[in-house]
Amino acid sequence: MSDLMARRAALLGPNVPTFYDDPVQIVRGEGVWLYDAEGRRYLDCYNNVAHLGHCHPRVVAAIAQQSARLNTHSRYLHEGILDYGERLVAKFGHGLSQMLMTCTGSEANDVALRMAQAVTGKTGLIATDNTYHGNTTAVAQLSTRRPPIGGYPPHVRRVPAPDSLAPLGGSTEAQAAAFAANVARAIEELEAAGHGFAGLMLCPIFANEGMPGLDPGFLDATVAVVHRAGGLVLCDEVQPGFGRLGSHWWGHERLDFAPDVVTLGKPMGNGHPVAAVIARPDIMAAFRNAFGYFNTFAGNPVSCAAASAVLDVIEEEGLVENARDVGAYALDLLSALRHPLIADIRGLGFFFAIEFAREGVPDGAFCGRVVEAAKARGILLGRVGRAQHILKMRPPMPFSRANAERLAETLDQILREMPA
Amino acid sequence: MSDLMARRAALLGPNVPTFYDDPVQIVRGEGVWLYDAEGRRYLDCYNNVAHLGHCHPRVVAAIAQQSARLNTHSRYLHEGILDYGERLVAKFGHGLSQMLMTCTGSEANDVALRMAQAVTGKTGLIATDNTYHGNTTAVAQLSTRRPPIGGYPPHVRRVPAPDSLAPLGGSTEAQAAAFAANVARAIEELEAAGHGFAGLMLCPIFANEGMPGLDPGFLDATVAVVHRAGGLVLCDEVQPGFGRLGSHWWGHERLDFAPDVVTLGKPMGNGHPVAAVIARPDIMAAFRNAFGYFNTFAGNPVSCAAASAVLDVIEEEGLVENARDVGAYALDLLSALRHPLIADIRGLGFFFAIEFAREGVPDGAFCGRVVEAAKARGILLGRVGRAQHILKMRPPMPFSRANAERLAETLDQILREMPA
Repeated sequence: MSDLMARRAALLGPNVPTFYDDPVQIVRGEGVWLYDAEGRRYLDCYNNVAHLGHCHPRVVAAIAQQSARLNTHSRYLHEGILDYGERLVAKFGHGLSQMLMTCTGSEANDVALRMAQAVTGKTGLIATDNTYHGNTTAVAQLSTRRPPIGGYPPHVRRVPAPDSLAPLGGSTEAQAAAFAANVARAIEELEAAGHGFAGLMLCPIFANEGMPGLDPGFLDATVAVVHRAGGLVLCDEVQPGFGRLGSHWWGHERLDFAPDVVTLGKPMGNGHPVAAVIARPDIMAAFRNAFGYFNTFAGNPVSCAAASAVLDVIEEEGLVENARDVGAYALDLLSALRHPLIADIRGLGFFFAIEFAREGVPDGAFCGRVVEAAKARGILLGRVGRAQHILKMRPPMPFSRANAERLAETLDQILREMPA
Repeated sequence: MSDLMARRAALLGPNVPTFYDDPVQIVRGEGVWLYDAEGRRYLDCYNNVAHLGHCHPRVVAAIAQQSARLNTHSRYLHEGILDYGERLVAKFGHGLSQMLMTCTGSEANDVALRMAQAVTGKTGLIATDNTYHGNTTAVAQLSTRRPPIGGYPPHVRRVPAPDSLAPLGGSTEAQAAAFAANVARAIEELEAAGHGFAGLMLCPIFANEGMPGLDPGFLDATVAVVHRAGGLVLCDEVQPGFGRLGSHWWGHERLDFAPDVVTLGKPMGNGHPVAAVIARPDIMAAFRNAFGYFNTFAGNPVSCAAASAVLDVIEEEGLVENARDVGAYALDLLSALRHPLIADIRGLGFFFAIEFAREGVPDGAFCGRVVEAAKARGILLGRVGRAQHILKMRPPMPFSRANAERLAETLDQILREMPA
């Protein structure tokens, strides 16, 4: 392990993110399980990329077969992108009937920002603080915690995200109006500064902010504010999309609002690099006519075959229903956990959050110890939130009741042994 | 075909690029050949992504095997990225010993720009006009021919690219000094405007500008200007890299200069979405410490397996030597073409350019007719240059003498039948 870390440092340089104080060397994956070089197995409760489970044979076969037949760019005609895209956009309402494919969620969000700019002719963008929408220059400017070289760009404003521990406006009831008011103020500032307002980007479950508990309708006032100002609501579905919430295919359906643009990524190809932007035709036309966009790898037949196999398996194996049913079962089990530092336990389908706080103050250090302890017991978890104080669990979609029991029992053991 | 075009328009929106007035529907690829839905075959002389030839069985097998074993992110340790990266950086000199993986050349260039900004603490960037370095917001700002919403960003300056037909400074001899002088002027402007100077990005063969004929040493004065000003030379090797030039593995080796950062893309995975940035350790550290960069799909074991197989095949099949030998043979054949509008015929390994001009004025329309006529005769070509007046030919690396003869004979027939 130390040999691999030394090789990484020599080849990749400093500050390359790894998980865990003593990172694991994963060599094999199958379903919900990952295996390290010593043959130890880990229950993967973190990785939402391997949506169907690691190395799902249907996706592997689709990639292998199409790679052997044709893999080229979309400037030639091919049925693959059409068959896939038509099937994908059929899963959206609100006039979201057109698709632009990219290779990564970052690229998709980078396009979505320009769609808002193309439609409005303005540059101003708003995002929530402590969020993350990707790694390109333009997208990183939405969310970086370290100022970019040259300072934060003046056309980007950040608003506080909704928060379960410290709700905006001082209470859960006041939070929706407070969030909308902050967005309205940011729009006014952008307009006063001459940038104008193009769009608001958000994750419809605020996943990176720790998935605060929000009721349907939470964003209604905000969406109205954005639309009154002529801007677009850009909905980053990279984490909640493809049925993870169990109740719906897409996160915006749960909050019951109509986004103008939706972006998709991580789970879309079960690990194959494929992502997309879904938009209304008026928005797509504005973007396509304003920018001459082409992406060499995007929408190639192999990516479309992988992404089609993902839809096949979700539907044939009933994985959305599984996320709903087993997700509810798992949330029941997790909700029985007891510890003085647990401030909240919440879940939507196969997305769970356990928030740790000490007298109302987020306890990121404790959360970090739980993650390390879970790894030692063979369970992979992550953490999020403004203080990294929220356990983040996003298991693969075939996660079973037995898997859920193992997760809950392990967390119970860890919390019992871990003093506040 | 018209059915597919209608479906594309409905699904993808307007202004989505296709090749040809009547685009082909490609359904299968093998080696240097692409096959359409009617079983017609085309000699692919355009696509540098399928570097080893379409659907090379070694890459297909590598992708299939690794996809079945593990495909996850680089926050866990894995030997794949280390084995590949160590082998790749060993192919570079000039202290270029570290690697950052991305999924696309656009992402790689987007990172390279920020590397220059991290090292210098300045934001100013310079690129050649009429070039293309990718599709993210930041990278598209280098090269767009249509102004971005909100106007061209003031921290980006464009300088005229070297040109075979109308050399900078009025003559081939004066061109190198003139190019350097233009870069020096742009640096002064950036400094005067308060942005400071971070870096110059260029393709070392100026591929999108039509690969003007340039001698080794052409960039020496420019590199000196950039370094004297404290900036970095960012070398976009997405097109010339991986041995295409026959004489060298990398384009900068042919012009014999030392870039500070190199970006790689298209051919790297023979179609699998994988790309990279190669940099000196001091530069990588400055970037890694200034930005918290992570890319979900980049450097996953499948991408590394595909990219490793590409290196295997290039080496085992002697493809660089093939590009050198067959490239020289093909250039001889092409050089025998005669037509009143041919202004120049040039080539480097498996990268050929035929420039069309009418009394010194670029003739893009004629070049377009040649591309269409070649398609009708079963050969796929592209075009580039400030007036799209330069035939661009980048065949797969196993291109044979017989393939070269077919290309030259077909072009000869076309040109004989096409009045000036």
